[in-house]
Amino acid sequence: MEKTVIKYKKGLKLNKPVLIVGLPGIGNVGKLVAEHLIKELKAERIATVYSPHFPHEVFMMKNGCIRMVSNRFYLIRRKGKQDIVVLTGDAQAVTPEGQYEVNHKLVRFFKEKLNGSFIYTIGGYNVSGSVVATPRVFGNATSKDTIKKFEKDNVLFGKAHTVIIGAAGLMLSFAKMEGMEGVCLMGESTFFDMDPAAAKAVLEMLTKRLGIKIDTTNMDAMIKKTAKALKELEKQLSGTMQLPVPGEGDNLKPSYIR
Amino acid sequence: MEKTVIKYKKGLKLNKPVLIVGLPGIGNVGKLVAEHLIKELKAERIATVYSPHFPHEVFMMKNGCIRMVSNRFYLIRRKGKQDIVVLTGDAQAVTPEGQYEVNHKLVRFFKEKLNGSFIYTIGGYNVSGSVVATPRVFGNATSKDTIKKFEKDNVLFGKAHTVIIGAAGLMLSFAKMEGMEGVCLMGESTFFDMDPAAAKAVLEMLTKRLGIKIDTTNMDAMIKKTAKALKELEKQLSGTMQLPVPGEGDNLKPSYIR
Amino acid sequence: MEKTVIKYKKGLKLNKPVLIVGLPGIGNVGKLVAEHLIKELKAERIATVYSPHFPHEVFMMKNGCIRMVSNRFYLIRRKGKQDIVVLTGDAQAVTPEGQYEVNHKLVRFFKEKLNGSFIYTIGGYNVSGSVVATPRVFGNATSKDTIKKFEKDNVLFGKAHTVIIGAAGLMLSFAKMEGMEGVCLMGESTFFDMDPAAAKAVLEMLTKRLGIKIDTTNMDAMIKKTAKALKELEKQLSGTMQLPVPGEGDNLKPSYIR
Amino acid sequence: MEKTVIKYKKGLKLNKPVLIVGLPGIGNVGKLVAEHLIKELKAERIATVYSPHFPHEVFMMKNGCIRMVSNRFYLIRRKGKQDIVVLTGDAQAVTPEGQYEVNHKLVRFFKEKLNGSFIYTIGGYNVSGSVVATPRVFGNATSKDTIKKFEKDNVLFGKAHTVIIGAAGLMLSFAKMEGMEGVCLMGESTFFDMDPAAAKAVLEMLTKRLGIKIDTTNMDAMIKKTAKALKELEKQLSGTMQLPVPGEGDNLKPSYIR
Repeated sequence: MEKTVIKYKKGLKLNKPVLIVGLPGIGNVGKLVAEHLIKELKAERIATVYSPHFPHEVFMMKNGCIRMVSNRFYLIRRKGKQDIVVLTGDAQAVTPEGQYEVNHKLVRFFKEKLNGSFIYTIGGYNVSGSVVATPRVFGNATSKDTIKKFEKDNVLFGKAHTVIIGAAGLMLSFAKMEGMEGVCLMGESTFFDMDPAAAKAVLEMLTKRLGIKIDTTNMDAMIKKTAKALKELEKQLSGTMQLPVPGEGDNLKPSYIR
Repeated sequence: MEKTVIKYKKGLKLNKPVLIVGLPGIGNVGKLVAEHLIKELKAERIATVYSPHFPHEVFMMKNGCIRMVSNRFYLIRRKGKQDIVVLTGDAQAVTPEGQYEVNHKLVRFFKEKLNGSFIYTIGGYNVSGSVVATPRVFGNATSKDTIKKFEKDNVLFGKAHTVIIGAAGLMLSFAKMEGMEGVCLMGESTFFDMDPAAAKAVLEMLTKRLGIKIDTTNMDAMIKKTAKALKELEKQLSGTMQLPVPGEGDNLKPSYIR
Repeated sequence: MEKTVIKYKKGLKLNKPVLIVGLPGIGNVGKLVAEHLIKELKAERIATVYSPHFPHEVFMMKNGCIRMVSNRFYLIRRKGKQDIVVLTGDAQAVTPEGQYEVNHKLVRFFKEKLNGSFIYTIGGYNVSGSVVATPRVFGNATSKDTIKKFEKDNVLFGKAHTVIIGAAGLMLSFAKMEGMEGVCLMGESTFFDMDPAAAKAVLEMLTKRLGIKIDTTNMDAMIKKTAKALKELEKQLSGTMQLPVPGEGDNLKPSYIR
Repeated sequence: MEKTVIKYKKGLKLNKPVLIVGLPGIGNVGKLVAEHLIKELKAERIATVYSPHFPHEVFMMKNGCIRMVSNRFYLIRRKGKQDIVVLTGDAQAVTPEGQYEVNHKLVRFFKEKLNGSFIYTIGGYNVSGSVVATPRVFGNATSKDTIKKFEKDNVLFGKAHTVIIGAAGLMLSFAKMEGMEGVCLMGESTFFDMDPAAAKAVLEMLTKRLGIKIDTTNMDAMIKKTAKALKELEKQLSGTMQLPVPGEGDNLKPSYIR
């Protein structure tokens, strides 16, 4: 395997689908959102992506079988509304060259084979060093016209000034290059490994916008668990160092996101 | 040389061969098993693999000649039974991209040129930090049907939950992709560089299953030597630290294997 | 995207243009010169370069939109004189292989699509560890004939003996390979991240040579600001260490440039 | 430039040339030998090799011009005898993949365009940590037949058992693959950066074998200079540590060579 391969269900006819991309990254915000949507809305897997640019390993599954590292497209059909396609997976490409090859291919697949029209990419945005009480949602879009469409949504455009590393950024740029529009929604994130609160902030914004009703019980449970773990950590650290608690007027010192 | 090259004996007609893959990795378990089979069963070399993804070096041989880094296929013919092909070598590909290219090519060669039907990959599985008294054999397979076929063999499926890095995992995934079945057998391993006890555990399981009788005198000698070296080490360490001795009920904290 | 892509305005007819290359590097000397020329002379963008060899990230812009990492060609038309094309950008290729691919493609684009004839590449040259009072301009050219043409300009040829890393060097070598001539002009630089004084030294030399009149108010302001920051730094360091002040007769201990 | 390019003088008719490869490596033994031969025998350059696998830099030359990193073939014509071709250069490929691509191409060029028949590669061999009084010459060849031809030469075959990294090893393996023979001659080396004594040991062996008379005055001067520098170093170190002085019966603990 020398090139990225996409194996997909042939003959699917989709209704102007939007794509929601949630791959591993800061706080795993994107992946948490994508997995929640797939589980709660019983999405059907319609395509699997393998790539020589992914890590060279396979997963040992609980049933004793193996599974290659992959990205996966899932379909949520909606009567009389645009269909929703969700992309998630185990990893992103490990080299810059791989990132360009894989992300362009993913975007072209969505456009050419799924008849796609709009891409949402989800990421985390980390205001370095600070614990976030109520995570905000930052946004960057392919055009000013697209930004306007989010006027009524509570998304902060133009407030973060750094770079978006990896799929969340590149897929949007490739969307634009291929004549589509899109937006990157970033949940303000505290934790680098898993931040369900940031994920919920994006999820609420997104589902409202797409007119989806979704149960967030599972995600709420994760948030409680994470908050509890943080308090434990704070106790252990008290006396040695203090985690800062930022307010609204904070200077947004940016850091990398994916 | 820009692509992996396989030089092979033309015109071979094999009887539904199974492939046993033993390449360098954790405890060199796979390589020890492969080399033992080749030596004891006087296997014939039928193919040599060179690749730009292997390390860029050649070996200085004892006879004063040189030998390029390679992987090699060996044949063990059996009357009235499936033939056995063994794959071993000096190295695995050094990059993720190389791993995908080389391992896919090896699997397709086995299928298309050798008429292959089933792949065993051998590796080591290291329960981190612990010395293993009686190494167990862990397994992961391409399908539940294949797992069932190992019911009577003493293989632990679904007990290890991490990733298989490199050839032992990828070749199995590519086997599945190409319509073949296979299993990865992992000897529970203590040492990272050379673990003949783990190798013997896999060898016994494998030879029983394939209906092979094999002399293990040489491997037993290696095991004794290694055990003695370990005792020496323990003596030197006593007073400073203790190597843990795990029992049956241990929590299997997994670590990487190849 | 697996190869470097250049999107350009079709049908442009240029008058024997010279190319001025100012990409990120030591002291950002090249980029500062290029951006100053583009701004002050109101250059028009005529081509955009994307490449899988650039970093895999996109910029979050102030207007809330995104922009892919790119290099860009700008045009300055001059009546009755050779046109000027300026190349600048966000990054250089991140691997050696990428550097060779991208830089060769840039040179061939300039020659074949823009009808180009001569290339100036701009860089910084750092005499390690020393603060430069009056930055000199060092030069290296594609041929002795080209060096002769700079006799009346105050450029030091053959006084620096190290290597030019990246685009500033490779584009010149590729120019020569493609039958064009060129010169690399390096401003003597103190700071690694941003050295407007070194940039001004090159800019003055270059504009005089090309017969351009240009306002340097903005650059002068940057120089003052940088000098002030340096004095602050010296104060803080006084008592602990001294920054050396080199004179004319200094031994030119060379260091890397881009 | 995406592939290695060899620019060469067309129409050359050589008399069964042998190739002597001396590229940068341990002690720069190969490069010292090659450069000495080229200078003393007034060899003519007949081909230049550029590659995206070489470092992405150009040299600033003393005359103010630039020169791309390259490898170069030189020709020494001999009446009534086999011609000699010498290959040297500024660098070897920087990645494993690059090493395989470049070295195979160099070997095929020698065979197909220069009508070549035999390859000598020169390297350094470092018995780690020890200062060598009288450097020996170690050898590895493409076949036992070739080893036999060196019976009367004072070359130690089969006494070193490690790997030859890079061109000195790979070019020999590719020679064999392309139906040619060859030998790697390694001067026993003390210094990692520049070891003229090891180079002279190989040079004497090689010139005797090829029936060449050569002035070694320059190399002798380098040896004296290096020996003096070593003594200085020893003085400075005395009291703190001792450099070992190995004898004939030393255990040859091998280390990497190029």
